Amino acid sequence: MGEGGGGGGGEPAVEEATGFEVGIVVPKVSRSAAARCGRGEDCVARLVQELEDVGLLVERVRGVPAEFIKLSAPMGTLGRAAAEMQMKKLTYIGMELQFEWDQVAAFVRQPDGSLFSWRERFACFRHLIYRIVNKTNSDIILKFDDKEFHWAQNESLLRRLEDEGVVKLVFPLHDEIKRKQLLRNWALNWLDFTWQPIDEIYSYFGTKIAIYFSFLGMYTRWLFFPAVFGLTTQFIDFGSLQWLVLPAFFIFVISWAVFFLQFWKRKNSAVLARWGINYSFSEYKSLGNEVDSLSCSLADDNVQEKKFGDAPDEKRILQRNEWFGVLLRIRNNAIIVLAIICLQLPFELAYAHLYEITETEALRYVLTALYLVAIQYYTRIGGKVSVILIKYENNQGEQSSADSLVYKVFGLYFMQSYIGLFYHASLYRDIMALRQVLIQRLIVLENLIENSIPFLKYSYKKYRAVHKKKHEKESPAGKSVRLSTRVEKEYLKPSYTASIGEELEDGLFDDFLELTLQFGMIMMFACAFPLIFCFAALNNVTEIRADALKLLVMLKRPAPRAAATIGAWLNIFQFLVVMAICTNCLLLVCLYDEEGKWRIEPGLAAILIMEHALLLIKFGFSHFVPEEPAWVKANRVRYVAQAQNVCSKQLLRSISKLDAKWE
Amino acid sequence: MGEGGGGGGGEPAVEEATGFEVGIVVPKVSRSAAARCGRGEDCVARLVQELEDVGLLVERVRGVPAEFIKLSAPMGTLGRAAAEMQMKKLTYIGMELQFEWDQVAAFVRQPDGSLFSWRERFACFRHLIYRIVNKTNSDIILKFDDKEFHWAQNESLLRRLEDEGVVKLVFPLHDEIKRKQLLRNWALNWLDFTWQPIDEIYSYFGTKIAIYFSFLGMYTRWLFFPAVFGLTTQFIDFGSLQWLVLPAFFIFVISWAVFFLQFWKRKNSAVLARWGINYSFSEYKSLGNEVDSLSCSLADDNVQEKKFGDAPDEKRILQRNEWFGVLLRIRNNAIIVLAIICLQLPFELAYAHLYEITETEALRYVLTALYLVAIQYYTRIGGKVSVILIKYENNQGEQSSADSLVYKVFGLYFMQSYIGLFYHASLYRDIMALRQVLIQRLIVLENLIENSIPFLKYSYKKYRAVHKKKHEKESPAGKSVRLSTRVEKEYLKPSYTASIGEELEDGLFDDFLELTLQFGMIMMFACAFPLIFCFAALNNVTEIRADALKLLVMLKRPAPRAAATIGAWLNIFQFLVVMAICTNCLLLVCLYDEEGKWRIEPGLAAILIMEHALLLIKFGFSHFVPEEPAWVKANRVRYVAQAQNVCSKQLLRSISKLDAKWE
Repeated sequence: MGEGGGGGGGEPAVEEATGFEVGIVVPKVSRSAAARCGRGEDCVARLVQELEDVGLLVERVRGVPAEFIKLSAPMGTLGRAAAEMQMKKLTYIGMELQFEWDQVAAFVRQPDGSLFSWRERFACFRHLIYRIVNKTNSDIILKFDDKEFHWAQNESLLRRLEDEGVVKLVFPLHDEIKRKQLLRNWALNWLDFTWQPIDEIYSYFGTKIAIYFSFLGMYTRWLFFPAVFGLTTQFIDFGSLQWLVLPAFFIFVISWAVFFLQFWKRKNSAVLARWGINYSFSEYKSLGNEVDSLSCSLADDNVQEKKFGDAPDEKRILQRNEWFGVLLRIRNNAIIVLAIICLQLPFELAYAHLYEITETEALRYVLTALYLVAIQYYTRIGGKVSVILIKYENNQGEQSSADSLVYKVFGLYFMQSYIGLFYHASLYRDIMALRQVLIQRLIVLENLIENSIPFLKYSYKKYRAVHKKKHEKESPAGKSVRLSTRVEKEYLKPSYTASIGEELEDGLFDDFLELTLQFGMIMMFACAFPLIFCFAALNNVTEIRADALKLLVMLKRPAPRAAATIGAWLNIFQFLVVMAICTNCLLLVCLYDEEGKWRIEPGLAAILIMEHALLLIKFGFSHFVPEEPAWVKANRVRYVAQAQNVCSKQLLRSISKLDAKWE
Repeated sequence: MGEGGGGGGGEPAVEEATGFEVGIVVPKVSRSAAARCGRGEDCVARLVQELEDVGLLVERVRGVPAEFIKLSAPMGTLGRAAAEMQMKKLTYIGMELQFEWDQVAAFVRQPDGSLFSWRERFACFRHLIYRIVNKTNSDIILKFDDKEFHWAQNESLLRRLEDEGVVKLVFPLHDEIKRKQLLRNWALNWLDFTWQPIDEIYSYFGTKIAIYFSFLGMYTRWLFFPAVFGLTTQFIDFGSLQWLVLPAFFIFVISWAVFFLQFWKRKNSAVLARWGINYSFSEYKSLGNEVDSLSCSLADDNVQEKKFGDAPDEKRILQRNEWFGVLLRIRNNAIIVLAIICLQLPFELAYAHLYEITETEALRYVLTALYLVAIQYYTRIGGKVSVILIKYENNQGEQSSADSLVYKVFGLYFMQSYIGLFYHASLYRDIMALRQVLIQRLIVLENLIENSIPFLKYSYKKYRAVHKKKHEKESPAGKSVRLSTRVEKEYLKPSYTASIGEELEDGLFDDFLELTLQFGMIMMFACAFPLIFCFAALNNVTEIRADALKLLVMLKRPAPRAAATIGAWLNIFQFLVVMAICTNCLLLVCLYDEEGKWRIEPGLAAILIMEHALLLIKFGFSHFVPEEPAWVKANRVRYVAQAQNVCSKQLLRSISKLDAKWE
């Protein structure tokens, strides 16, 4: 960080260029086809030429499965693209303003001294390559492998080529130097258990992944406390005070979780401050796009009323939309809840019941195998239904949709993961079976399986590519064909995608889901098996390395996503803590009432259930009705947008001056 | 509101002057003394002259008890004062910038079309009259009633006169026209029960009082729903479903409260948007002052590091301060909680127990009288201790101190008001006694008593003033002396002060406390006596008028205070809802288990208590540890301050231009 501060003040390094960070995949053209003459121009050649014309550095690589165009950009090109995109960027006065290349000194630099973050660079690359349009007055005829097609006026070349099937993929490339450095310092650094080079992860993978690893690291570090306590309870006999141990552990664990989540929020905002991300402004971003259109259409006719924030028409529209959105959300959640209760719950209970009454071990394994196959399908269908449902919600911005999806899918997994455990614990008071299942779930070397799948996929693809090649060339069996370039290896690697809803979430969704389910497991059944925290801690230490290896070695470099917090997952963690309080109380009742002698009046039980339901309503309700009406928010957003638009240039000039004065 | 929008765009009304809004009280000088010659100048005459020199309009009024200097200001004078004070004011782009008189078009106008709100006007008045200093090179000798004193160089004249006892008071004056209007439309408008002219209240009394009345009005309106339900449960027999009525009422009431509080937040932000108060920025205000000094001292030497938000020294200092503050707050809260449990709880329980075992009605009344006297002293001492304690907390800004005080004092009153009720309800299962006490507390015509005290005070002061006058003049007993001018009547009226901690809170503290205790009472004992909501609703309808009359007729016009929300009180309301869930469950147990046959295992009871304690920890803890570290917050504040300072003038110019273009 100190280094970052030092590098920030220098002259804008105009000549500095990025590494090759984006790759475009096109099919290989056989030499003979390329040599043949035709009416049109070769489209790949044209693409390369156009890419060079917009100021990108291009390198063509012929690989075994296809041909690759690697792109790199000088700072100046990126800067011009950012200015063209009207990219909003944080300035030294803490406001986000439109980027201007000549006022570059006004903008906050990254901790590593560079001007653009990886997310911003990638956005600029995409802007540059997709904005190559036919600027001439007539269609241009291009050909590819004897096939001809028209490149219409003002049509994006890359989109056209994608539609024609020429461009197979545009994907971010790994930066070999940084990747090796991260591999050494992070993925293969086994000495320090939980330390991670978060700042470097941020500048290589972007905010969202860095925040995930930051959370995972802190969670693992904090896990050692209850792990030690859990070990102590297991191996030390407290004599006559033994009956106090479990309640003490319970109270400790809950307080631990409460502290952990609160301190995570602090750490999150500290990390964001270090990266120069102005989180207080980020709430505007999500709403910004939608309101922009609205405010533009309203800007001309009723300026007068706008000033006092009560343009009545607009207010009415926004209010109607807001309530309509709330109703839609309630309906969709009701559908999901009903589906879970009516379809999933009976199924899970049936499985748990069958498992409990099955006598032979072999039959149990068969049962479990059947069950595992069934839930695979069930959760996949559930995820798809959720994705479809949230498309019909008018969520405000992408983040809100993603959160909505997270809640719905977590609902499915919550039922699936825990209801069986509850069943063992409460109905049969079968604590031993519960412990067995817990250990199974945490040990089952999930990490290994999870990580071997992408590797197997990669190996298979590589094998197929090489095999095809051999076949084509009809070379003698003795001569081996090898994948020689880095870029083609990367191309064959699987990408970092979520098991559901690719457009809203990337692979982090699955990683977070796994983490959350683990947290729920260890918290909700803490009293049944204190040792579980040790398993979780060990599991997470390996999880950090495994996830790091997966990202650095097994997968394509993921496209960066913006996310300042862990979002909906934090709310789910909070919810799990509350659930843990209730379930552990139930467990304690089971554990202390060994002979089942404790009786409770039905009236009292009903009142207790009512109490818990009301507490849930009290603390859950505020998630449905936002504290600020949509029209108030829209007004605020518009103010900020006005500030950014009206005064952008003047402000930038004065900030740059100020900056120069400081130095 | 529509009217406000129309008036906002006009030319700045430079010549428009305020009414006489501030009064200064000086003793009457006997004509003989004034005529006598002396070395020095008469100080009151000098004061008047200086006041006229700064541009104020001055009117001297000789009253019976003293002489009054009434002040009014032309807009230009106020504007210059605001610019001198570097007052921050909201502009049309939603940023708060330093006020500049020549860019007046850039600033948002009030809903009633005026440039400054009453709070801003009052601040300007204070600035103007306290900034009159001796600008000559030597001390000036002033005299008052034969007494001479020196007015030193650069000393504030008004402070000097206050120290010498010449200026007795500086107080805001009622605006007779607006006051009469409000009296007619609001305090004496009995036709519409809960409607209030909130916008006019805002422009006459300022944000804090307007927010109080807005809350009170909404609360009263919403109270009609449970009141109707309560009446229904009381007078309709549901036959075989009668046993379901109370739980249904309970669930209804809790949901009602949850909805009410959430919708209040929405209403609050809607009202603020209408008044042009940018709440998202107001969090900076409280911290602003403290950070300013810090950032100034650091501005020169380590600018480089500041930019990335990790000046290590400053960060360390801020972190140390933050944790020290948290520790202090925990210690102080521990003191208060201990005092409540060790001193107040036994006392309250003793009273409740004695009341329960006393046989005769007469003895009970004696006991209650003794008790009432005792708690008067107890709460007064408690309040004073709280005020002392929070002085030793390093709270960030005045608002935070006020909140801290509110929590502490509410703790005292909570125990005092409810513990006796709990005692009757749970230990003796004496629901009838509980109902009696509830009715007593809500009917006892508290409003009448509360409002008659200021009137009696005023009458007494008037009587004394007139009596003294008569005595002095030694006039014949037959000639009556009357208070003739409005200003002297106002002077004799009591001011709107809190029963504790005058510097942190005004009279609203007591009004809010009353409201909160009422809410707690009706919520926590809802099931014991559903009819209580009717009493509360009636009580509040009169409360609105009574409070309005108090402010408009009985008291001096209160000095305006800035507060965008109801602050700590909202958190207390939320807490009371949670408490209500638990207490009503207890009440239901008492009510349904008439013969006391329900048994509960001690183990189960212990687990239930533990569960509730943990839930309390879960939801209460986050109040102690802020989500954002102090240094991150300080950074953000500094950014905003930089934006305001660096670009103020340029921005203003461009906003004015934009404004002109729109019109």
